[in-house]
Amino acid sequence: MLQLLSEHACFGGVQRFYQTASTAIGLPMRFAAYIPPHADGARLPALFYLAGLTCTEETFAIKAGAQRIAAELGVILVAPDTSPRGAGVPGEADAWDFGVGAGFYVDAVQAPWSTHYRMYSHILELRELVARELPVDDARVGIFGHSMGGHGALTIALKRPDLFRSVSAFAPIAAPARCPWGRKAFTGYLGTDESAWLQHDASALMASRQTPFPHGILIDQGLGDKFLAEQLHPEAFEEACRTAAQPLQLRRHAGYDHGYYFISTYMEDHLRFHAQNLAFET
Amino acid sequence: MLQLLSEHACFGGVQRFYQTASTAIGLPMRFAAYIPPHADGARLPALFYLAGLTCTEETFAIKAGAQRIAAELGVILVAPDTSPRGAGVPGEADAWDFGVGAGFYVDAVQAPWSTHYRMYSHILELRELVARELPVDDARVGIFGHSMGGHGALTIALKRPDLFRSVSAFAPIAAPARCPWGRKAFTGYLGTDESAWLQHDASALMASRQTPFPHGILIDQGLGDKFLAEQLHPEAFEEACRTAAQPLQLRRHAGYDHGYYFISTYMEDHLRFHAQNLAFET
Repeated sequence: MLQLLSEHACFGGVQRFYQTASTAIGLPMRFAAYIPPHADGARLPALFYLAGLTCTEETFAIKAGAQRIAAELGVILVAPDTSPRGAGVPGEADAWDFGVGAGFYVDAVQAPWSTHYRMYSHILELRELVARELPVDDARVGIFGHSMGGHGALTIALKRPDLFRSVSAFAPIAAPARCPWGRKAFTGYLGTDESAWLQHDASALMASRQTPFPHGILIDQGLGDKFLAEQLHPEAFEEACRTAAQPLQLRRHAGYDHGYYFISTYMEDHLRFHAQNLAFET
Repeated sequence: MLQLLSEHACFGGVQRFYQTASTAIGLPMRFAAYIPPHADGARLPALFYLAGLTCTEETFAIKAGAQRIAAELGVILVAPDTSPRGAGVPGEADAWDFGVGAGFYVDAVQAPWSTHYRMYSHILELRELVARELPVDDARVGIFGHSMGGHGALTIALKRPDLFRSVSAFAPIAAPARCPWGRKAFTGYLGTDESAWLQHDASALMASRQTPFPHGILIDQGLGDKFLAEQLHPEAFEEACRTAAQPLQLRRHAGYDHGYYFISTYMEDHLRFHAQNLAFET
């Protein structure tokens, strides 16, 4: 069920890489899991991290510098891959913003993508898997992510706040139905009926909810991010949160760009934010 | 002289990548520099980090998680590349442990390597360059590194303690004249006269010195490191330190391997060790 590919001691815990036969995707899928030091038999809070375009299950483990803080807080970190691998769809690796490395955390309904590109269901499947196979406290699981993965984290949390009790994001694609990356991906995976897209648009989803995260949502955005104006639209999500009376900390940081030098700078704040939110769930 | 290739805000400072026309190498060379937040006109201590086989000037900046601590301590971090690039020596990229990505921090004397493979001189050249072009306090510069770069840091510091006032290493190749990686590299770069190798062997160098680093040397070594028995020989360096009355903290860590999950775990200890040593130099 869960094949351990490699394991590395790290900050007193272990950084692991697993492979699993994914039912949702219909192919083997990899993910990373950091297990902090913990007492035998303990059940720990867990945080899913969804990565952005072109990334893999390794990106977060290598670049984000999160293990130190997770070790201190006693939080498990789970990082899935960003798309199916080896689906064999013609042209699937031709673009960096669609297909391989760009699953957008939706279940495709358009052929030929609909056979394997089912990342939304894959994240829920992994959520169940780690709660069963790792020392995860099923009642204390949160989710966060970056860019495309920020979109994934926000939309999945808004659809399933019962499964993910805390949510945050770095530079999320906050209104994909109105930006080029999102429109390309949604057209390809979901088809041309734009009304169906709104179920996968964080700003649209939020506007129709009632304060789903009473402890707030945290978003960090760099103002030196070259994708900010055209692709990200945090102001749309901010407006939707106002409409839904959802508390939001949207922090704008002068000079910071879209990459992991930005993410690593604010990683500690996010882990502490989630640890505090998930502590309320005990 | 110094061409800025890219710059990323990071922990209140900037992670930069530079290119310079290297006189020592005779080719353009890249290096990374992290500049922490600092007062205008301040001169800061600096630490050179030498990376291991197959690495580039990006590896340390991406994987080591050092910027957070450097920002707190006010230390500049300089990470050179590990070999010339584009030297055009036939077969130079055929092996991962010799040639491209494997300059071994020596000046080759054997043709055809001797034209460009002059990493020892390159490190000294960079030392001068950053003291001139970056806000570095020339009297407070240290050096550390990993594996091949641990060998580089130890040997360069032992040859030039006047230039590098503090030294540490992660899993260094501590006695290269007696291990396969070192013997292959030294044969190729330096020739078959083994007596000439000893000038580039940390354990041999140390045995002929008198307490060059009175504040001590710090080495971390994972006991789950698959290269430990055949390639690294920290016990030889330990014995040489005893002979030279050189204080050494050689810490052996059960379970840790040779990679950056290990290095990042102990990075903070190394930066604090150097910051303290370099504070004595003010």
